[in-house]
Amino acid sequence: MKDAACPDRLIALTHRMADAAGAIARRYFRTPFDVISKDDESPVTIADREVEAAIRTLIAAECPEHGIIGEEHGTERADAEHVWVIDPIDGTRAFITGMPLFGTLIALLRNGKPILGVIDQPISNERWIGAAGHPTMFNGKPAKCRPCPELAAASLMSTSPDMYDPPANGAPFGRLRQAVRFTRFGGDCYAFGLLASGFIDVMTEAMLKPYDYCALVPVVEGAGGKITDWEGRPLDLRSDGRVLAAGDPRAHEQALKILRG
Amino acid sequence: MKDAACPDRLIALTHRMADAAGAIARRYFRTPFDVISKDDESPVTIADREVEAAIRTLIAAECPEHGIIGEEHGTERADAEHVWVIDPIDGTRAFITGMPLFGTLIALLRNGKPILGVIDQPISNERWIGAAGHPTMFNGKPAKCRPCPELAAASLMSTSPDMYDPPANGAPFGRLRQAVRFTRFGGDCYAFGLLASGFIDVMTEAMLKPYDYCALVPVVEGAGGKITDWEGRPLDLRSDGRVLAAGDPRAHEQALKILRG
Repeated sequence: MKDAACPDRLIALTHRMADAAGAIARRYFRTPFDVISKDDESPVTIADREVEAAIRTLIAAECPEHGIIGEEHGTERADAEHVWVIDPIDGTRAFITGMPLFGTLIALLRNGKPILGVIDQPISNERWIGAAGHPTMFNGKPAKCRPCPELAAASLMSTSPDMYDPPANGAPFGRLRQAVRFTRFGGDCYAFGLLASGFIDVMTEAMLKPYDYCALVPVVEGAGGKITDWEGRPLDLRSDGRVLAAGDPRAHEQALKILRG
Repeated sequence: MKDAACPDRLIALTHRMADAAGAIARRYFRTPFDVISKDDESPVTIADREVEAAIRTLIAAECPEHGIIGEEHGTERADAEHVWVIDPIDGTRAFITGMPLFGTLIALLRNGKPILGVIDQPISNERWIGAAGHPTMFNGKPAKCRPCPELAAASLMSTSPDMYDPPANGAPFGRLRQAVRFTRFGGDCYAFGLLASGFIDVMTEAMLKPYDYCALVPVVEGAGGKITDWEGRPLDLRSDGRVLAAGDPRAHEQALKILRG
């Protein structure tokens, strides 16, 4: 069963989760709300918390035996066969600065492997959904990464240079920047959607948490791209938070060599 | 006459220019097009060139005596009393990566002083227009900066850390980052619109050209904000490309002190 296609029932449920999340995020976007600093200094708002609560309610109603790992409301049944991994608002800084780039990330892991993921952009009404055994869909149509056989021609994106302050991240990233055509910062999860639709070639991140990256895996893979950690290993809950995605597996291989030095 | 309000006729013309520009940008967005590297290595596309040509056609038809400085098609009559300054696609890197954040910037200078400016976001259908003697309007409603009396509570945005590679820019910017609540990269002209609408507090840039900043001046000032160079001087065609904008003049004063060291 381990490579079975993701059931349609779970894909439909994920769409309903994203619909519910988007309605809440749109209600709060660009309204006055408190911004609370968490222990790790990352910001959180009432919108993050309400979105995640709404998604958890749907899971409890339809799949009560599934586990949940959420950014804001913690972990339940992490040892279940199926575990949902939720980032209610990826790009909270974009959200609180009125930038329509934040998104909701929902992943489903089966036996630790991401088999379903959604990147939902509630302001621009863009949704990428990837599921094992299905092509990645962008707003109801198949999404496909574009070819990029040579890394020198690649456009590279990354959310923030702050991820590369630790030298262990900064030195490899510096080499990668030298090897591509150009780099653009700012993006959060949206950039992985752009990669799945063939508008950018390479996306790299560091210091991510599982809820930041699990949903990206089925989206990128179902569009023909490759996504791993910086050692080329598949991403799972134990990954170290350094992510490399490329629309063309050849560009991924070249980028991986550069990151590994 | 030098502080007279900007005539309604010119504001209406600017709306028509932005309408024409947006129609072209939307037609090319996320379609395959060539990306050409200019002499300064900045990218340009056919969309940049067609947008600017369309704006120039409107100027020639309605104000043939006015001067024009455009990013793509050069300068005409720079010594005229009225000079238009055009960035057809500000954020070309966003444009070519399929990111809906690029915008069109159009400014009108009278005797060297920006008296009219538009920031138009053709994908999200958002338009800020500022004009001397008029409040800044966002999609037809007045826009207002928010209060931020203490810089320590400010959200800071800036387009790219690459602007701060030269130490003369990097050291002051590093001090400013330490003084604010948080920094977010990525933004281009859109961030100045967010500032004029009270969603962020401080925006700083470096290495800008006149067509990147002239249009921002009336938008920010007409919303109650302050925008100058890093020495506190008004922006004009001779500025050095380092820009500091704040929604609250008190935050501007504090940021200026920090930048000046």
